[in-house]
Amino acid sequence: MDTLTLIAVASIITAGFTIALGSIGPAIGEGRAVSTALSSLAQQPDASATITRTLFVGLAMIESTAIYCFVVSMILIFANPFWNHVTSQLAGK
Amino acid sequence: MDTLTLIAVASIITAGFTIALGSIGPAIGEGRAVSTALSSLAQQPDASATITRTLFVGLAMIESTAIYCFVVSMILIFANPFWNHVTSQLAGK
Amino acid sequence: MDTLTLIAVASIITAGFTIALGSIGPAIGEGRAVSTALSSLAQQPDASATITRTLFVGLAMIESTAIYCFVVSMILIFANPFWNHVTSQLAGK
Amino acid sequence: MDTLTLIAVASIITAGFTIALGSIGPAIGEGRAVSTALSSLAQQPDASATITRTLFVGLAMIESTAIYCFVVSMILIFANPFWNHVTSQLAGK
Amino acid sequence: MDTLTLIAVASIITAGFTIALGSIGPAIGEGRAVSTALSSLAQQPDASATITRTLFVGLAMIESTAIYCFVVSMILIFANPFWNHVTSQLAGK
Amino acid sequence: MDTLTLIAVASIITAGFTIALGSIGPAIGEGRAVSTALSSLAQQPDASATITRTLFVGLAMIESTAIYCFVVSMILIFANPFWNHVTSQLAGK
Amino acid sequence: MDTLTLIAVASIITAGFTIALGSIGPAIGEGRAVSTALSSLAQQPDASATITRTLFVGLAMIESTAIYCFVVSMILIFANPFWNHVTSQLAGK
Amino acid sequence: MDTLTLIAVASIITAGFTIALGSIGPAIGEGRAVSTALSSLAQQPDASATITRTLFVGLAMIESTAIYCFVVSMILIFANPFWNHVTSQLAGK
Amino acid sequence: MDTLTLIAVASIITAGFTIALGSIGPAIGEGRAVSTALSSLAQQPDASATITRTLFVGLAMIESTAIYCFVVSMILIFANPFWNHVTSQLAGK
Amino acid sequence: MDTLTLIAVASIITAGFTIALGSIGPAIGEGRAVSTALSSLAQQPDASATITRTLFVGLAMIESTAIYCFVVSMILIFANPFWNHVTSQLAGK
Amino acid sequence: MDTLTLIAVASIITAGFTIALGSIGPAIGEGRAVSTALSSLAQQPDASATITRTLFVGLAMIESTAIYCFVVSMILIFANPFWNHVTSQLAGK
Amino acid sequence: MDTLTLIAVASIITAGFTIALGSIGPAIGEGRAVSTALSSLAQQPDASATITRTLFVGLAMIESTAIYCFVVSMILIFANPFWNHVTSQLAGK
Amino acid sequence: MDTLTLIAVASIITAGFTIALGSIGPAIGEGRAVSTALSSLAQQPDASATITRTLFVGLAMIESTAIYCFVVSMILIFANPFWNHVTSQLAGK
Amino acid sequence: MDTLTLIAVASIITAGFTIALGSIGPAIGEGRAVSTALSSLAQQPDASATITRTLFVGLAMIESTAIYCFVVSMILIFANPFWNHVTSQLAGK
Repeated sequence: MDTLTLIAVASIITAGFTIALGSIGPAIGEGRAVSTALSSLAQQPDASATITRTLFVGLAMIESTAIYCFVVSMILIFANPFWNHVTSQLAGK
Repeated sequence: MDTLTLIAVASIITAGFTIALGSIGPAIGEGRAVSTALSSLAQQPDASATITRTLFVGLAMIESTAIYCFVVSMILIFANPFWNHVTSQLAGK
Repeated sequence: MDTLTLIAVASIITAGFTIALGSIGPAIGEGRAVSTALSSLAQQPDASATITRTLFVGLAMIESTAIYCFVVSMILIFANPFWNHVTSQLAGK
Repeated sequence: MDTLTLIAVASIITAGFTIALGSIGPAIGEGRAVSTALSSLAQQPDASATITRTLFVGLAMIESTAIYCFVVSMILIFANPFWNHVTSQLAGK
Repeated sequence: MDTLTLIAVASIITAGFTIALGSIGPAIGEGRAVSTALSSLAQQPDASATITRTLFVGLAMIESTAIYCFVVSMILIFANPFWNHVTSQLAGK
Repeated sequence: MDTLTLIAVASIITAGFTIALGSIGPAIGEGRAVSTALSSLAQQPDASATITRTLFVGLAMIESTAIYCFVVSMILIFANPFWNHVTSQLAGK
Repeated sequence: MDTLTLIAVASIITAGFTIALGSIGPAIGEGRAVSTALSSLAQQPDASATITRTLFVGLAMIESTAIYCFVVSMILIFANPFWNHVTSQLAGK
Repeated sequence: MDTLTLIAVASIITAGFTIALGSIGPAIGEGRAVSTALSSLAQQPDASATITRTLFVGLAMIESTAIYCFVVSMILIFANPFWNHVTSQLAGK
Repeated sequence: MDTLTLIAVASIITAGFTIALGSIGPAIGEGRAVSTALSSLAQQPDASATITRTLFVGLAMIESTAIYCFVVSMILIFANPFWNHVTSQLAGK
Repeated sequence: MDTLTLIAVASIITAGFTIALGSIGPAIGEGRAVSTALSSLAQQPDASATITRTLFVGLAMIESTAIYCFVVSMILIFANPFWNHVTSQLAGK
Repeated sequence: MDTLTLIAVASIITAGFTIALGSIGPAIGEGRAVSTALSSLAQQPDASATITRTLFVGLAMIESTAIYCFVVSMILIFANPFWNHVTSQLAGK
Repeated sequence: MDTLTLIAVASIITAGFTIALGSIGPAIGEGRAVSTALSSLAQQPDASATITRTLFVGLAMIESTAIYCFVVSMILIFANPFWNHVTSQLAGK
Repeated sequence: MDTLTLIAVASIITAGFTIALGSIGPAIGEGRAVSTALSSLAQQPDASATITRTLFVGLAMIESTAIYCFVVSMILIFANPFWNHVTSQLAGK
Repeated sequence: MDTLTLIAVASIITAGFTIALGSIGPAIGEGRAVSTALSSLAQQPDASATITRTLFVGLAMIESTAIYCFVVSMILIFANPFWNHVTSQLAGK
């Protein structure tokens, strides 16, 4: 049952650190984008429509890298092909 | 009972460090966003409605990356599929 | 009794480092937010109501990431499901 | 069955850290690009067409490096040639 | 008596590093807040009441993250549930 | 079968980290280039043709270093000469 | 006598590093606060009473995090409950 | 067959990390150069010929350090003298 | 005599690194404070009495964190309770 | 054949990391030099001859440190005296 | 003679690194203080007496942290109580 | 033959990392010097003779630290006294 | 002869790294001091006597921390009390 | 012959890293000093005699820390007292 244990442990550790490390970059990047949006709004309130639209597109792009990490993290926990292969093999044995 | 122990230990350590590391980025990013919001409010008090609205949308986006980490951390502690698989197997044995 | 020891040690170490690492980001983020609030107040004393309100909402958002870490830390010490499972199994044995 | 385990563990860990590390750079780079786009829009609202177009081309270039990491990560999980070689060899044995 | 030793050692090391690491963030954050408070006071002495009040609320929020670490550190030294469980079990043996 | 395993594991780990580390530099460098392009466009909209052309040449140069990493990563996964040598030797045995 | 040694070594090492690491943050934070106090005094000598008072309150708050570390360090050396428990047990044996 | 394995593993790992680490510096350096070129073009559009020419010479110099890394990486994969020596010796045996 | 050796080695190493690490923060913090004091004196020579007094209070506060480290370091070398306990036990044996 | 393997592995790893680490400094240094050259050209187009000449001398000096690394890297791969000594000894045996 | 060796080795290594690490902070702090003193002298040559006196007091305070490290380093080499205890014990044996 | 192998491996690894690490500082330092030389030339073209002469003296001083590293690296590869001692001893045996 | 070897190896390694690490801080601190001295001289050539004198006193203070490291390094190589103790003991045996 | 090998390996590794690490600080410090000298010359060409003289004194001071490292490095390779002691002992045997 060693194979099972090792794959489970590796999946648990990797799933956690993937989303933990993967949230640092996007959080800082979004903080920067939101921060400039606010000071731009204060400087040029008339352009608020364009600024808000561009901000949302930008946030979506940045958030996408966090989503990639979350997806990989979820795949490793709930749809891990290596785990499925090994458990099905053990069940079929 | 070794498999159980290893998975438990890995889950405990990963759950803690996931939320610990995952809170650094959002906290700094939100600090930056709030900080600029305040200086923008001081600079252009008339735009306070737009600034506040944009700030809340931005904080929600940034907080979402912290939420991802919290969700993974909670899944690992309270709804860990690997732990459930192994304990159910041991119980059925 | 090895399983018990390992889970206890992992919980102790993780609980401590979760809150230790998890307090760095929020403390710096809040320091930044408070700092800008103060310089904004000095620059525009008339907007003090809006600035104070926005500051408190922001501090609450940032503090929330520290709270997540504290909650996980407390769960690991006082309501650890892995520890409960193992001790109840040992007691029932 | 050792070969299988080792390759699975290596693939899981590498897949997670590839996308986790690979999302830091693009997220920060895009945050910077979006941030300057917003302050440029506030400074020169008339050039919003050129700025938006250049921003999107730039974001696409930066996102491409995150995509490379995501592709490698997906290949390692779902189309790993080493895993396929070994499992087909074991099956044919 | 191995379990006792391991838990004691882990508690000692974790208690120390929790408060040591946990005091870096708050100290720097408070330094920043106090520092801006002073330059704001110099710039706008008339707003000293508002500035002082906001500074104290902010310092309380930041100090709270240091308090969390101190509480966890004290719990690990003086009210450690894992240590109590193991010593009571050994005593009852 | 040890040689096969070791080479596969080394290739998997290296392929992932090569593209992960190799995307940090280009992403930040491109973010910087795009960011200055946008503020230059806002400052001198008339020079938009020259700026855009220079930006694209520059992005191509920077992207090239990411491409090198991607190429090495793909070679290690799909056209690994060491893996081919060893598998052909084992097949011919 | 192994338990005694391990706890003593862990206490010595932790006590030292707790106060060593714990003095970095407060020292830098206080340096910042004092530094701004001085430049504020030079800029607005008339507000010296308010500035000095606020500085002392701030320094007390920042110093408190260093005190926490010193207290934990002293507890570990001179009032270590784990050490007392083990030595009293050995004495009673 | 141990020698073969070790050299193959070392070559694979080194080839990947050489180009991965070696692309960080050039990418950031080129980003800086392109970035200043763009702001110089916006500031002095008349000097665009001289600026573009100097930029290309500079990019070539910076790119050369990335090329060195790529060359060493390719040599290690496709024209490794140590690998050739050992395989020819084994073949001649 | 193993216990003696281990405690001695731990005390030596900890004593040294405690004061070494503990002198970094205060030295940098004091450098900052002195540095601003000097530029404040140059800017406002008339306030030299207030500036000097505040500087000395501040330096005393910052130096105190270095003193904590020195005290712990001296205690570990010359008044180590763990060492005394063990040597007295060995002598009494 | 162990000596041969160890020297080969050490040479491969060192050759790669020498040029990888050695290209970071020059690439960043050259990026800085080129970057200032471009902004100087934009500021003083008349001095372009002197600026270009000084730039080329400077780039040559900086590139020389990258060349040192490349030379050592090539010596380790193609003209390694330790490898030659050992292979000639083995051949003469 | 193992105890003697271990204590000697630990003392040698600790003595060296204590003064090595302990000289980084003071050197940088003093560099900063001297640097501001010089620019203050250039800005306000009339206050040279006050500036020089304050600089010397400040340098003495900063140098004191380096002296602490030097003292501990010398104690460990020439007046090490642990070494004396062990050698006297061995001599008396 | 173990001594020979160890010395060869240590020399190879040290030679490479000496020049690799040793080229980072000089390359960045020279980049800084060249960069300021260029902006000084643009600001004061009349002083070009003095600036160029001082630049060359400065570059020579900075390059000298890289030369020290290159010299040590070459000595370790081609004139290693430890290697010579051991090989001559082995030959004379 | 093991004790001799260990002490010699520890002394060699510590001596080297003590002066290597210990030269980083002073070199950077002196660079900063000299750098400000030069710009102060350019700004206020009349105060050159005071500036030069203060610079030399400051450089002497900063250099002193490097001298401490050099002294410890020399003591460890040429007047190592631990080495002398052990070799005299071995000789007297 | 083990003692000989260990001392040789330690000397080789330490000699290389001493000069490699020891050249980083001086190179950056000198780069800073030269850089300010050049901009001072451009700003005040009349003070070129004083500036050049002060620069040379400063460079000599900074270079001295690199020389210390080079001296220690040379001593370890060519005049190593530990190596001499051991080889003379082996020869006299």
